[in-house]
Amino acid sequence: MAGNIRLYEVSPRDGLQNEPEIVSTDAKVALIERIVAAGFTDVEVTSFVSPRFIPQLADAAEVIARLPKAEGVRFWALVPNPVGLDRAVETGIRNIATFMSASETHNQKNVNRTVKESLAGLKKVIGGAAAHDIRVRSYISTALGCPYEGDVPVFKVVDLALALREAGANEIALGDTTGMGEPSQLQDLIGALVAAGIPVSDLACHLHDTRGTAVVNAYAAWKVGVTTFDGSIAGIGGCPYAPGAAGNASTEDLLHLFEREGCDTGIDLEAACEAGAFMSEVLGRTLPGRYHQYWLGARARRAKLAAGS
Amino acid sequence: MAGNIRLYEVSPRDGLQNEPEIVSTDAKVALIERIVAAGFTDVEVTSFVSPRFIPQLADAAEVIARLPKAEGVRFWALVPNPVGLDRAVETGIRNIATFMSASETHNQKNVNRTVKESLAGLKKVIGGAAAHDIRVRSYISTALGCPYEGDVPVFKVVDLALALREAGANEIALGDTTGMGEPSQLQDLIGALVAAGIPVSDLACHLHDTRGTAVVNAYAAWKVGVTTFDGSIAGIGGCPYAPGAAGNASTEDLLHLFEREGCDTGIDLEAACEAGAFMSEVLGRTLPGRYHQYWLGARARRAKLAAGS
Repeated sequence: MAGNIRLYEVSPRDGLQNEPEIVSTDAKVALIERIVAAGFTDVEVTSFVSPRFIPQLADAAEVIARLPKAEGVRFWALVPNPVGLDRAVETGIRNIATFMSASETHNQKNVNRTVKESLAGLKKVIGGAAAHDIRVRSYISTALGCPYEGDVPVFKVVDLALALREAGANEIALGDTTGMGEPSQLQDLIGALVAAGIPVSDLACHLHDTRGTAVVNAYAAWKVGVTTFDGSIAGIGGCPYAPGAAGNASTEDLLHLFEREGCDTGIDLEAACEAGAFMSEVLGRTLPGRYHQYWLGARARRAKLAAGS
Repeated sequence: MAGNIRLYEVSPRDGLQNEPEIVSTDAKVALIERIVAAGFTDVEVTSFVSPRFIPQLADAAEVIARLPKAEGVRFWALVPNPVGLDRAVETGIRNIATFMSASETHNQKNVNRTVKESLAGLKKVIGGAAAHDIRVRSYISTALGCPYEGDVPVFKVVDLALALREAGANEIALGDTTGMGEPSQLQDLIGALVAAGIPVSDLACHLHDTRGTAVVNAYAAWKVGVTTFDGSIAGIGGCPYAPGAAGNASTEDLLHLFEREGCDTGIDLEAACEAGAFMSEVLGRTLPGRYHQYWLGARARRAKLAAGS
């Protein structure tokens, strides 16, 4: 075995918040049940960002109330600020994720705050979570490039990661928010973070496949020691207005790569593919994941053969 | 600079032969003109496989007659057998490509011959080409796995590559025909071929993105010295019956990767993307290339902004 890989599944949150339609709570719960049954140990299930901004996830409390009982599975919810933390704490969820951008312009456009203001707010969230013994992952968005500013200096990401760690974040998730990163850049960034004192086991890569680089970037990060990767089943959350266009790294693509490289993911790829097929039906359209599409095609061919025999 | 990369463009042949409709000769010539204008030095323009099997490329001689004058550009045509070579020689083309599979079952299903029979036939083709001072590339299909047999032993690929080289093939193109390969497997195969005496500069990778691995496999091959990669503009030749599904590695994805890694490709990525946009219009549907889709989306947003200002 080439080591263990931990896949952190984001489709119920990061996937569905980028879908134009609002998916029913029933379908969300059914998706999460399929994800858990496939063997994932980490699932980001919803968000406590105000429903005014993300109506798709307005049923956060209900989704959490209906989560399957699953030993050893961590369910995560996105929390934007202290108000969101209060809502999250009320639901009893044990793991939260915070987010902010490394680049000033993206942070301003995304949350209407400076990087400094965001960091101050998140310190309160992280401290508050610690008081409730809640585990925290902190996303750093635009870690590999900003669509407004272009290159994001490595030191900005490192400084931010250290500040979030000092505040108590257990895990830092490097977000390639618009898929601008490339392999050697990502390896350099990981090297700088490790050199600054953050164990590589506390780093995660949240990659986007916008320009076709999600899988190669995951591979490059794995080659320098990262073992946690975010994926979205079937690539849910790809730009919904451009058919086939990609957003989140597809879980099945990552699973296939790491399985073929001899890693142990603990996840059943077939069951993950079934979850993707289910979501393609729920959303009623072709989803962007490569392996997802390959698998659907292979299943259709098998069905045709079986019907003909 | 991280070195030179040579992209070998296959869309006019391998792309269009997998399209359901027949593209006009005018459109093919227009595509090739755009490819040449973008800076590609190698373009596989057509095939001399019988039009009974590939009606899409029945206009091979006419396409070759209408090729743009382009200093330093090699135009290639696929040649299946001595009859095809005669047809190719008549057109005056200076570079041909042969093909056969490393796995018995795939070769049988593809060309209705044993591997041994195919190799004997190709030796005649390669020898005949040499007599006309025609350069030869030889594809080895299913080099990283066979959809019927599964794993293809490395020694079979090495033996075949050595036999084709002995016959006079200038370049060996390793075909991952159905996208079954993974990075360390490909690196091992390249290592075995180099150990057997084939210079890495005479190897090319012809990768498919069926399962989302084309870019990561190209990266892995580049890390062990390969510098020639086949691509198809916009991923033309993806499975046309499954919207968005992938076949050939997308040229723009490879160009973007290697540019971002600091390599010199000699190709203008924007011009390559324009060629992809042109072909999306010609074929009248969404093509699978990731970067292609990203670029179309970015162009549409720019146009919208310009219209609003």
